[in-house]
Amino acid sequence: MPKAQRHRGTKLLGSEAVRKRTKVVISSRARNLIVLNMRRSILITAGIITVSDRGSRGEREDISGKEVRKLLEGISVNVVDYEIIPDEKNIIINKLIEYTDERKLDLIVTTGGTGVSPRDVTPDATLEVIEKEIPGMSEAMRRESAAATPHAVISRAVTGIRKNSLIINLPGSPKGATENLTAILPALRHAIEKIKGDESECGE
Amino acid sequence: MPKAQRHRGTKLLGSEAVRKRTKVVISSRARNLIVLNMRRSILITAGIITVSDRGSRGEREDISGKEVRKLLEGISVNVVDYEIIPDEKNIIINKLIEYTDERKLDLIVTTGGTGVSPRDVTPDATLEVIEKEIPGMSEAMRRESAAATPHAVISRAVTGIRKNSLIINLPGSPKGATENLTAILPALRHAIEKIKGDESECGE
Amino acid sequence: MPKAQRHRGTKLLGSEAVRKRTKVVISSRARNLIVLNMRRSILITAGIITVSDRGSRGEREDISGKEVRKLLEGISVNVVDYEIIPDEKNIIINKLIEYTDERKLDLIVTTGGTGVSPRDVTPDATLEVIEKEIPGMSEAMRRESAAATPHAVISRAVTGIRKNSLIINLPGSPKGATENLTAILPALRHAIEKIKGDESECGE
Repeated sequence: MPKAQRHRGTKLLGSEAVRKRTKVVISSRARNLIVLNMRRSILITAGIITVSDRGSRGEREDISGKEVRKLLEGISVNVVDYEIIPDEKNIIINKLIEYTDERKLDLIVTTGGTGVSPRDVTPDATLEVIEKEIPGMSEAMRRESAAATPHAVISRAVTGIRKNSLIINLPGSPKGATENLTAILPALRHAIEKIKGDESECGE
Repeated sequence: MPKAQRHRGTKLLGSEAVRKRTKVVISSRARNLIVLNMRRSILITAGIITVSDRGSRGEREDISGKEVRKLLEGISVNVVDYEIIPDEKNIIINKLIEYTDERKLDLIVTTGGTGVSPRDVTPDATLEVIEKEIPGMSEAMRRESAAATPHAVISRAVTGIRKNSLIINLPGSPKGATENLTAILPALRHAIEKIKGDESECGE
Repeated sequence: MPKAQRHRGTKLLGSEAVRKRTKVVISSRARNLIVLNMRRSILITAGIITVSDRGSRGEREDISGKEVRKLLEGISVNVVDYEIIPDEKNIIINKLIEYTDERKLDLIVTTGGTGVSPRDVTPDATLEVIEKEIPGMSEAMRRESAAATPHAVISRAVTGIRKNSLIINLPGSPKGATENLTAILPALRHAIEKIKGDESECGE
């Protein structure tokens, strides 16, 4: 299994760099702006779990996991953990609990095991650990993906919340994973900020 | 908490006025027409529950509740109850049960508490009281709303049936509440008539 | 109740005829092709269950069941069982279990009882027998159907897997049943092959 990779805090790009820089200003008005900026550029940590029997035996290169990482880093999400595990329900459950309860990651994205084959159990494992389901995110992913790929309707991918962590299932194919994640990318930071307890008004 | 407002039977407009007037006719053919008209203009009673910590403390004007009322009255639904309650799961559950089991309202529309913040529990309370879920109504609301507002995919709003009452969750923002309710307005009277036991053929 | 009709193996059309013919070739490369062809033209057996109080009493002709059969046969699915049963939850549950566990049909399509009337219990019966739900297929059906028929959002139809069988609920009206099934027809064979354990890569 690939070792967990950490690079939290190793880059300061875009809005984060701006946040760091603005910290030198201390006037009252500026402080409000800083708080606003901090909220806007809130640090988000993520883990990627690739669920694949073949991948976990090293028989298949994990292209999907890499594509997912690229998309997440594109919206300034810090991917701090990444592992490939087999399609075993208990292993998936334990890994999800480790990433949420122990490592307290804001976002956990799984790829693989969302289909209808007997070995596909990622959604079933996810349903056992989440406390609240967010059906609208899964619906939007399937709808957008189905416009390009009719088979996308078969995905049983689940999205939900455990404690303060957002868990998102993606299909295993690079095309499916990319299509699905892209569909909800515009709502992702907002969702995570709300889950973490941001109480500003929303819905505009 | 605002006192429940009742105006059942205080207006007779449109199809209802027609129904009242036709009651004086008693020929067999006319009676059939009356029955048909009564079915077409079946009296629908509704309650609106605004779920909002700030609203219930009087710290925020409830614009969404008013917008919802306007939309419902536009399709001749009689809004006979309206209250603002805090984001407390047990309070929401009790209010839903009161409106369905005791007050026997045909329709209960909640607004607020459908998001992913820790205090958002309206869908969770609703899931505990409904006997049958109607996922298609929630899907349609999210789909239509998401076309205008990408964040709409975060709504966990639930639609379902308890006894002979239809319960619909709407988001708390005026824009979200209006977009969502508008999406299912064309199917609303039909759904309520079926839930109340109308056995005419449908599906055309 | 109409007697179960069986015509498994009575026709050899299209890809199935090709498969039979290619069986005479025995070179290694040809054998691979045969295996590929067999997989592509995998024999799929199906049962249709029309759920209707009136239909089961012979008071209404079952047009929907016939339309569903036509659509399935159009993609070379062999409809080997067909029955009309009343809107009774226990009868539906028992019939679904018979078709999956005993008769081991690959596909069971129900039509009727998906609405919101008190007698509509097909989705509730289905939820009790399936082991995995496939929400994306129901979503796609409702979405496509709603584009033509606003009332389609009321359908509570469920799609899911029990053992190696795919169970699909359709609305009872001929228009609704046809619109809904047509929406998922392009993904149907692929889904069934995967459920039966085909391990080839997917998601392209």
